[in-house]
Amino acid sequence: MSKNPWDRSPVEVLRAGPGFRLESFDPSATPGWSDDKDDGTERMRDQGERLADLQEMLFAEGRSGGTRSVLLVLQGMDTAGKGGILRHVVGMVDPQGVDHASFGKPTDEELAHHYLWRIRRALPQPGRLGVFDRSHYEDVLVVRVEDLVPPDVWGARYDEINAFEAELVGAGTAIVKVALMVSLEEQKARLMERLERPDKHWKYNPADLAARAKWPAYRSAYQAMLDHTSTEIAPWFVVPADHKWYARLAVTELLLDAFERLGLRWPAPTYDVEAEKHRLQAT
Amino acid sequence: MSKNPWDRSPVEVLRAGPGFRLESFDPSATPGWSDDKDDGTERMRDQGERLADLQEMLFAEGRSGGTRSVLLVLQGMDTAGKGGILRHVVGMVDPQGVDHASFGKPTDEELAHHYLWRIRRALPQPGRLGVFDRSHYEDVLVVRVEDLVPPDVWGARYDEINAFEAELVGAGTAIVKVALMVSLEEQKARLMERLERPDKHWKYNPADLAARAKWPAYRSAYQAMLDHTSTEIAPWFVVPADHKWYARLAVTELLLDAFERLGLRWPAPTYDVEAEKHRLQAT
Repeated sequence: MSKNPWDRSPVEVLRAGPGFRLESFDPSATPGWSDDKDDGTERMRDQGERLADLQEMLFAEGRSGGTRSVLLVLQGMDTAGKGGILRHVVGMVDPQGVDHASFGKPTDEELAHHYLWRIRRALPQPGRLGVFDRSHYEDVLVVRVEDLVPPDVWGARYDEINAFEAELVGAGTAIVKVALMVSLEEQKARLMERLERPDKHWKYNPADLAARAKWPAYRSAYQAMLDHTSTEIAPWFVVPADHKWYARLAVTELLLDAFERLGLRWPAPTYDVEAEKHRLQAT
Repeated sequence: MSKNPWDRSPVEVLRAGPGFRLESFDPSATPGWSDDKDDGTERMRDQGERLADLQEMLFAEGRSGGTRSVLLVLQGMDTAGKGGILRHVVGMVDPQGVDHASFGKPTDEELAHHYLWRIRRALPQPGRLGVFDRSHYEDVLVVRVEDLVPPDVWGARYDEINAFEAELVGAGTAIVKVALMVSLEEQKARLMERLERPDKHWKYNPADLAARAKWPAYRSAYQAMLDHTSTEIAPWFVVPADHKWYARLAVTELLLDAFERLGLRWPAPTYDVEAEKHRLQAT
């Protein structure tokens, strides 16, 4: 592998630590990366191959009795690029090893249960990379902004989510939480593109403008989420997303880091390799 | 698009019609394709882009109230390359639009239900490409060879499966059934590779040799399956799989053909595009 082209590790520079302020965050920046887009795309492809190898190792571990898994949680406003991450980053690994779940407006059945019910049902199986396109964090974001439950109810959820995630981590799931941040100007351009291209009309929803108008309230909700739930065991990474190539590269690196920290190895055979060679040879 | 390089359409040449005999089938052939591997790989990449576009159109249709879907059913003996199809063919389309299910040995819960129970639960959602890695056909293959139920029970399943698939097709699911056929020699080489490479040890199972020893019984079971269930609405395609590049190219073409026959179009907007442009501009 070529030498590391990052000026600063994305794992450090994108992590939402104490004192992180969304209001001074620049969604058009490329923190830690001073090379250009082409270099970024090339780096992403290289790291993607490494990611695919490690994902296969995790899958092999799961097939061999291991219980560990990785969970990528994606949050972001409309047009922030969650779909692009799914397609271009998650799409680099073997789809057999991916458990994907998308959390839209809850169904009646889901509403009849605790908000973590649908989340628990969608957790990755052992050996899998789970990907949440939106997540339990909707229950402290849109739910808070739209006043869908009283403040004391959503207010209690931060601690509850932290406890839930601690339980997951304890059970062997590495959690990578990514908030994609797009600027209001770039969001406008992306929405306009959806209106201008017939192949993108289906992606546009007039309700998107209502959410857009509430950006200050969403920013407060995101800030509170980051303040309360960027924990040591499951920190948030806030990724500037005006440059799609940067966001995709950054998420590739964040995922790869999580996989590397697992210290994965190919499972040892549970049979006698030499004896099996002889048996096979005789067939 | 460049001119069609196939001598004969894979949809025609690979289809198991009346009189198809597995015993005279050559798993090392590349029917319909006389160009080389590099040409095949290039063709697959081009067709893969088209496949990804059509899959997005189907996804858009599903998001816009459409109910159609596509289901790829993959069957084949160990090492026939089902996993490679999943990774390299299905992996070319957006993972968000794929519902993947793998059917191994049934669990106790699955065994307590009708054999189609677990299948029905895994059918693709509207707008999705469903992929079955093994399927309900296990219930007339391994179940028949291993005598897991009496002959009159498995014998009744062919008609039952045909009725089930007719129901699916009637409800808007296009079914593409692929049987990957690898020769005994090539299977031996692939199993040996699993024994020789530590990164492949986890893929080897001593029980694979037992199934290998029963190849004549499996061939009879596959032949009966093809005889009884290669229907007009859901035909079987038997794909020679000794050359992985050929099998992947062929399955790409078969899938693409199914998507093309849907006559997909981008959904018309359900809102006033010009009015929305003005609303957006004003934000």
